Amino acid sequence: MLKNIPKVISPDLMAVLMKMGHGDEIVLADGNFPAESFGPQVVRADGLGIPELLDAILNFLPLDTFVDENVILMDNGKEEKPPIWEDYKRILEASGEKIKLKTVDRFEFYNLAKKAYCIVATSETALYANVILKKGVVEI
Amino acid sequence: MLKNIPKVISPDLMAVLMKMGHGDEIVLADGNFPAESFGPQVVRADGLGIPELLDAILNFLPLDTFVDENVILMDNGKEEKPPIWEDYKRILEASGEKIKLKTVDRFEFYNLAKKAYCIVATSETALYANVILKKGVVEI
Amino acid sequence: MLKNIPKVISPDLMAVLMKMGHGDEIVLADGNFPAESFGPQVVRADGLGIPELLDAILNFLPLDTFVDENVILMDNGKEEKPPIWEDYKRILEASGEKIKLKTVDRFEFYNLAKKAYCIVATSETALYANVILKKGVVEI
Amino acid sequence: MLKNIPKVISPDLMAVLMKMGHGDEIVLADGNFPAESFGPQVVRADGLGIPELLDAILNFLPLDTFVDENVILMDNGKEEKPPIWEDYKRILEASGEKIKLKTVDRFEFYNLAKKAYCIVATSETALYANVILKKGVVEI
Amino acid sequence: MLKNIPKVISPDLMAVLMKMGHGDEIVLADGNFPAESFGPQVVRADGLGIPELLDAILNFLPLDTFVDENVILMDNGKEEKPPIWEDYKRILEASGEKIKLKTVDRFEFYNLAKKAYCIVATSETALYANVILKKGVVEI
Amino acid sequence: MLKNIPKVISPDLMAVLMKMGHGDEIVLADGNFPAESFGPQVVRADGLGIPELLDAILNFLPLDTFVDENVILMDNGKEEKPPIWEDYKRILEASGEKIKLKTVDRFEFYNLAKKAYCIVATSETALYANVILKKGVVEI
Amino acid sequence: MLKNIPKVISPDLMAVLMKMGHGDEIVLADGNFPAESFGPQVVRADGLGIPELLDAILNFLPLDTFVDENVILMDNGKEEKPPIWEDYKRILEASGEKIKLKTVDRFEFYNLAKKAYCIVATSETALYANVILKKGVVEI
Amino acid sequence: MLKNIPKVISPDLMAVLMKMGHGDEIVLADGNFPAESFGPQVVRADGLGIPELLDAILNFLPLDTFVDENVILMDNGKEEKPPIWEDYKRILEASGEKIKLKTVDRFEFYNLAKKAYCIVATSETALYANVILKKGVVEI
Amino acid sequence: MLKNIPKVISPDLMAVLMKMGHGDEIVLADGNFPAESFGPQVVRADGLGIPELLDAILNFLPLDTFVDENVILMDNGKEEKPPIWEDYKRILEASGEKIKLKTVDRFEFYNLAKKAYCIVATSETALYANVILKKGVVEI
Amino acid sequence: MLKNIPKVISPDLMAVLMKMGHGDEIVLADGNFPAESFGPQVVRADGLGIPELLDAILNFLPLDTFVDENVILMDNGKEEKPPIWEDYKRILEASGEKIKLKTVDRFEFYNLAKKAYCIVATSETALYANVILKKGVVEI
Repeated sequence: MLKNIPKVISPDLMAVLMKMGHGDEIVLADGNFPAESFGPQVVRADGLGIPELLDAILNFLPLDTFVDENVILMDNGKEEKPPIWEDYKRILEASGEKIKLKTVDRFEFYNLAKKAYCIVATSETALYANVILKKGVVEI
Repeated sequence: MLKNIPKVISPDLMAVLMKMGHGDEIVLADGNFPAESFGPQVVRADGLGIPELLDAILNFLPLDTFVDENVILMDNGKEEKPPIWEDYKRILEASGEKIKLKTVDRFEFYNLAKKAYCIVATSETALYANVILKKGVVEI
Repeated sequence: MLKNIPKVISPDLMAVLMKMGHGDEIVLADGNFPAESFGPQVVRADGLGIPELLDAILNFLPLDTFVDENVILMDNGKEEKPPIWEDYKRILEASGEKIKLKTVDRFEFYNLAKKAYCIVATSETALYANVILKKGVVEI
Repeated sequence: MLKNIPKVISPDLMAVLMKMGHGDEIVLADGNFPAESFGPQVVRADGLGIPELLDAILNFLPLDTFVDENVILMDNGKEEKPPIWEDYKRILEASGEKIKLKTVDRFEFYNLAKKAYCIVATSETALYANVILKKGVVEI
Repeated sequence: MLKNIPKVISPDLMAVLMKMGHGDEIVLADGNFPAESFGPQVVRADGLGIPELLDAILNFLPLDTFVDENVILMDNGKEEKPPIWEDYKRILEASGEKIKLKTVDRFEFYNLAKKAYCIVATSETALYANVILKKGVVEI
Repeated sequence: MLKNIPKVISPDLMAVLMKMGHGDEIVLADGNFPAESFGPQVVRADGLGIPELLDAILNFLPLDTFVDENVILMDNGKEEKPPIWEDYKRILEASGEKIKLKTVDRFEFYNLAKKAYCIVATSETALYANVILKKGVVEI
Repeated sequence: MLKNIPKVISPDLMAVLMKMGHGDEIVLADGNFPAESFGPQVVRADGLGIPELLDAILNFLPLDTFVDENVILMDNGKEEKPPIWEDYKRILEASGEKIKLKTVDRFEFYNLAKKAYCIVATSETALYANVILKKGVVEI
Repeated sequence: MLKNIPKVISPDLMAVLMKMGHGDEIVLADGNFPAESFGPQVVRADGLGIPELLDAILNFLPLDTFVDENVILMDNGKEEKPPIWEDYKRILEASGEKIKLKTVDRFEFYNLAKKAYCIVATSETALYANVILKKGVVEI
Repeated sequence: MLKNIPKVISPDLMAVLMKMGHGDEIVLADGNFPAESFGPQVVRADGLGIPELLDAILNFLPLDTFVDENVILMDNGKEEKPPIWEDYKRILEASGEKIKLKTVDRFEFYNLAKKAYCIVATSETALYANVILKKGVVEI
Repeated sequence: MLKNIPKVISPDLMAVLMKMGHGDEIVLADGNFPAESFGPQVVRADGLGIPELLDAILNFLPLDTFVDENVILMDNGKEEKPPIWEDYKRILEASGEKIKLKTVDRFEFYNLAKKAYCIVATSETALYANVILKKGVVEI
């Protein structure tokens, strides 16, 4: 553990965040997501939920403001959207980043995930809880 | 994630538990423990606390009843013992295992940890929260 | 060995089951199956038969209920079906999972196996004994 | 699977048997034995018992006739010896090898195991079921 | 060395034979064959000829009887066939396997070799001495 | 690059800082230090000086307050101390950590460095510029 | 550190420069460039800027004079060009190499970078600071 | 060093020559050749020239007599051919091998090199000094 | 295969011979020798006998003439010496090397073998057939 | 190849020179030296002599001036010293470094070599040609 680094960020996750560049994407995958068979490198986060990881990651990861969307959620295709989205919106707003949110259906999400830089395999139990973040440029 | 396996148990932690044999010891190390420099293999559990891990592990790990102690805690040398010990005692009792508890001082604990089979590097923030478990025999 | 984990499940097999996600498939391959040349990672289970493994795996692996089939058998193309199918049906029913069974011919089975997440190389000697299981979502 | 090779012998176990030389020892360890922490390389045989492995191995492994003992059992220190010894004696006699049997207590057995060439981690559930075999010379 | 295993079979060769399944092919390549550049894994057998290896392998490897050919030789395109074929035929007949022999020209042989499971790089000095064996099913 | 992580901290250096525990030591070695032959793992920081690294590291690394010294410098044995020490003192004071500084001669420093958790191989050109930091406990 | 080798050149960077041949390209990537996801091997240069690296590299790397361009910059598509280009031009002129400079837009630069021999991941904070160098022939 | 092996042949180069088979090609690349980016495995021969290597290799490597060319040189497209070709011709003639020489232009040479078994990265400073050798059959 | 290299010498064996220096020892171990448990690296030569290997190796390996013995045999302690020694003496004499032969008992041989540079694991079936060769200096 | 780097310096040798620090030693070993069995990492320089390497290395490697000797030669114990020493002395003098030369006998040299940072395995054929260099501090 270190000062100023939330404890849910493992050494492997921090290394991935540091190595990503402008335009690279990271998937925060829920506990049922087939993370290991999609191709990108996997960072495991067993036992952790996505809200606490999302909150911690946004301390460090700038979001891409050059594109039309920098946060992508997996839609359940129903009128009633996944309740965890409320948590996500609150965390995203609190981050100070300029959020451009898009929702896509399950299979489009799968296609995006296969091209991501990294998939974080969490144990999030909420349904349709997967999130993609697109890294932006660090302002100096 | 699987049915009947608590989500705090990662694939690596499960493999370690399965490979341990009678008399092998596992250290549940708090977030300040120098886990990586002690020698035994390390399984990381960033973001997790020890009580939830202890509870999950005791679903699978039998404790050794052939010896004088099978659970070892690190003592703070003070009259007021670490508050987290109360959690541990409750979890241990609820496990159905026959508990033989011993407390040792910090440096004796270090010596035991260096000979353990594995150290689980948690993010437990409570002080003097380290635990050693000694594996027993599976009753058929 | 651990409490509550059947002894036919090796550490490597357990890790694979834990890492699989929704929609990933695992092949239980008989002793003549060309497991090592098909591409997916192989977990060896020399000396073991498929019924005991199937029974053990279904303690942990939920089957996919979002699709039309979650258990796929290799058909011998004859009127008299492989006798081991009776064992399989009994085990599947006893599992409590909602079974959606399909049979395919040998070459279609091969094509499915090449896209699986893992192939378990057993020593099952019964003919046409191969099985594919499709992992579902863990209900919380 | 091959003709003339019993199916309980995995590729890894066969390789170990072939690479051992005169005087090298192999431990058939029961399911509670701390195989992975003793030092020698480990071949896993999850789900298998020792009698079937012992029987299969003796088709290939000559026992050492230059020494005073070539089969070593772990004694339970009781008048009533482990029932599985009867199985072992029957299998050893049927092997055609010249058997020189010794029993040692648990801790002497541990010391021998630490110097062995290989430990086979079985799932044998019988107590005090561990066996050491000392390889001899192939007669041409 | 072991009892009942011919000494020309190395630990690596035995492992390959055991891991192959129904329909997998193994190439016994002569000393001039470009074994290492064809793609499949290579098992080296420097100093050994093909007849002794063929004879040894057929103690363990069943040939495929479900297909039109299970032994494939490289034809020299001449009226006078390679003299070593006489050795091969004698060994194949003595094996007790049901032989279905085919000959192909050098380039068709190359194409088959590139899809094989394994190439054994021998030091056979006879010309046009290469052989492919197709593994069958072990009869129980 | 990330927000809130100084750019002189590489992914490897961050991983090392995160994995260190209470009492582990890190050496910031100047460009002439024989970092690679001392035993501990080396993190390279070619082109960088020690002051900028020290400043960056102290954003994250708590110093050990349970011991008599937590910062150790290599003394030049002269009346006039290395000028870079003035930079170090300013940076250490500005860190907010409770500093306990000790100076040792070159050979005692070498002995300490050999037992450290990690050596950072910088390109610092100042003489007698080496520093050891001892990690403390993260206050929650 | 060595005599006559600038300290910003790490052992890994030097090895890459030495192994490159006529026509191979190296990318000096700024701190926001997605270096790790583009395919070529990455040499990290955390904490360093591009001008000091460019200057150091040109002591050793000859530029290709057989082609129409040997230095490629990423254009910002604006009238006002990146200020760091002035530094680059001064360094390039001072190198004594025959410079053939080309500018391309961001996406054409990406395509070139994906085919490069190596990407150096610097911490350069200037925008549109990326450079590609094409290696030439060493004149003897 | 060994008797009867010229000292310019390194252990790695010898291993490559031994593992090559009939029809495999080896490139002797000059010091400016982009050896490491072409794909085939590279054997380094820093500090050595091609004539001494060519002479040494031809003690062991038979050239292919089944094809139209077994030695391929890179042409400079000028009337005056590279002076080093005279050395090559003398060495080739002295080898006792039946030489079938072809010259190709730079880009055709590159295409051939990309399909070779191995590229030897020499420090030959002569221009247009690259050579491809095609291995033949060892006559017994 | 190559010209002028006997086919019993594998690429791995040749590499070992080339890398050995003055005073290094190589063990030619018979098929019952516990080669893999003695410590030095092992080169396998399954299916081969020692005389053919000894003969081939002495084409390349000079023997050490600075010491009192450069060939060491394992004595059977009987009046009648191992018949294969006659083969060895004939081969050694024919080698042109200056032979200084010593015989030691089995356990002294074991001690020497544990300090050798390499052990060649042959399938020699003759008893007491093990040989150690001590490498000398190449005369230029 | 690069400008300003002599071609006898391979990428591996350069990396070693760069990673060495004050007091680390490098052995330039002749072609008969048992480089691979002494323990330190080995950089191969097959085909090269020591004088050309020594000359090239001294362009970059400062020698240690804090100790009594920084160049150590292996003495032949005879009145007539190895003729190659004359070359060495000329090269050392021309280097501009402050040379402190010592000669030791063969076995003392061996002891020093076992503690070196690296051994360069050259093909130098001169006798008693081995050299140890002790790295000093880079003067800025």
